[in-house]
Amino acid sequence: MTQSTLVIIGLGLIGGSLAAGLKQFGAGKAGYHIIGLDHCQQSLDIAIAKGIIDRGVLSLDDIAQDLSSGDMVIIAVPTLSVPKVIHALQALVDSQVTITDAASVKGNVVEAVIEAYGELPPQFVPGHPIAGSEKSGVAAGHADLFVNHRVILTPSAASSSEHVQRVSTLWQAVGAEVVFMPVSEHDAVLAATSHLPHAIAYSLVDTLANDADNENIFRYAAGGFRDFTRIASSDPQMWHDIMLANRAAVLQAITLFQNNLSQLRTAIDAQDSAALLKIFSRAKSVRDEFSQLIDKQLTK
Amino acid sequence: MTQSTLVIIGLGLIGGSLAAGLKQFGAGKAGYHIIGLDHCQQSLDIAIAKGIIDRGVLSLDDIAQDLSSGDMVIIAVPTLSVPKVIHALQALVDSQVTITDAASVKGNVVEAVIEAYGELPPQFVPGHPIAGSEKSGVAAGHADLFVNHRVILTPSAASSSEHVQRVSTLWQAVGAEVVFMPVSEHDAVLAATSHLPHAIAYSLVDTLANDADNENIFRYAAGGFRDFTRIASSDPQMWHDIMLANRAAVLQAITLFQNNLSQLRTAIDAQDSAALLKIFSRAKSVRDEFSQLIDKQLTK
Repeated sequence: MTQSTLVIIGLGLIGGSLAAGLKQFGAGKAGYHIIGLDHCQQSLDIAIAKGIIDRGVLSLDDIAQDLSSGDMVIIAVPTLSVPKVIHALQALVDSQVTITDAASVKGNVVEAVIEAYGELPPQFVPGHPIAGSEKSGVAAGHADLFVNHRVILTPSAASSSEHVQRVSTLWQAVGAEVVFMPVSEHDAVLAATSHLPHAIAYSLVDTLANDADNENIFRYAAGGFRDFTRIASSDPQMWHDIMLANRAAVLQAITLFQNNLSQLRTAIDAQDSAALLKIFSRAKSVRDEFSQLIDKQLTK
Repeated sequence: MTQSTLVIIGLGLIGGSLAAGLKQFGAGKAGYHIIGLDHCQQSLDIAIAKGIIDRGVLSLDDIAQDLSSGDMVIIAVPTLSVPKVIHALQALVDSQVTITDAASVKGNVVEAVIEAYGELPPQFVPGHPIAGSEKSGVAAGHADLFVNHRVILTPSAASSSEHVQRVSTLWQAVGAEVVFMPVSEHDAVLAATSHLPHAIAYSLVDTLANDADNENIFRYAAGGFRDFTRIASSDPQMWHDIMLANRAAVLQAITLFQNNLSQLRTAIDAQDSAALLKIFSRAKSVRDEFSQLIDKQLTK
């Protein structure tokens, strides 16, 4: 059996964890010859030392001509760097090679693909693993990052089922559950459940940090605050990219939230007990209902 | 050695956990004859069955005349019910009995005390254990709820050091660290680090629940979202009370946050990379710096 080649472009937390997971769980049919591609020699050295890639290269030129049908490329670079990589792939990589990505926003990726290829070619299957950490970099990667997590694929009617299947198999090999969704739904759902909470967490911590009247404010924060603000420790460059890549949906989500918070503020100001109890009870009931679902998803 | 009597008014999560902690850790000098007072017979029955109180009563009238110097009363009822209890204590309890409370807001408690007593009497030591859970009720209580958590006491110049010492000893007996702060500072710090995050979490979950375009929105939420919204499962009545009891400080904290979020939204809208990176980096750096402090507080 000939081993397929998998090129992981970008050895950060996602790329590094995928490589580690494939080496740990992906024996047999899903076994790949893994090539790591990164502009940072140190990341390649770490990945080779950890034994998670078979070879490290600094440029697509070194390997593009060797890729053929059955091989796969996954783009795992920061969101706003994806278009540049797509243009390079269009110029260098065969149309039989499966191409996917792991970016947190899908609309701008599809736009970049259409700009580069003139259309969404059958070989391109956009994807997004719903997993991460407030830590970043290949050194923070671990083999079980995707276990029991969802990966959303957003293929179009033009995507070939053979390529979609290959990408599904890749993620299933590291323990993920693959689901499908249209691009616009993906971006709206993620804006609401991930991008908006990150915007809020960053803004809340920034608000408190700027509150000169309360110098020691964090000394008295309890566990709830720690959980609530953990995501504000996430990588600033990554979240800068995501907010801009998904700008329209993020702005819409922030506006909806701003309107809701204004109503809550008005109710507190007016000492409107009925309104407060209604908002808090409704939110608690929804959160309780879904916490079981969420806990089940994450622990099954 | 005569055992002091401790009356716990309100056997909810806080009152029940204090009773449980004293029974588990508070042997010797800090051993109390614990009387639970609650309007709910079922809560008393649970507390007696768990062995955390020695006696349960439904009314202050049953026990007030038996209390004398060395004894203590702690008010652990919902925040907006505190004033009513204070008026009853003023009418029925001796001036040598130590009185404290566990409410999340201190300004309105002190106001109620002054209204009832004409001043803050030496026997009254306002307090607030920085501990809790999104669960509530005596059944959710546990002996180690306060271990390594802070209790903020806000005595005035009029508070007698003897009474302050007795309240400190009470909380230290269940593993808490006692710190002191002026009332206004307490309410401003808690508005920012606790009341504002709860308002935001409730509002965020309510926003998503009302988003009719995204019916399955919670299905795709990841672990960060789960942590971020956990506090929205807290008791609605309790948070209704807190928001109203600390209204001025909460409104001020919400306004500061709204202004910050508007600036962030403007930066995303204007695709202002420099502003976004500055906000995210500053927030991350503050959160990273304090996460060590917070983790240390909670795990030492």
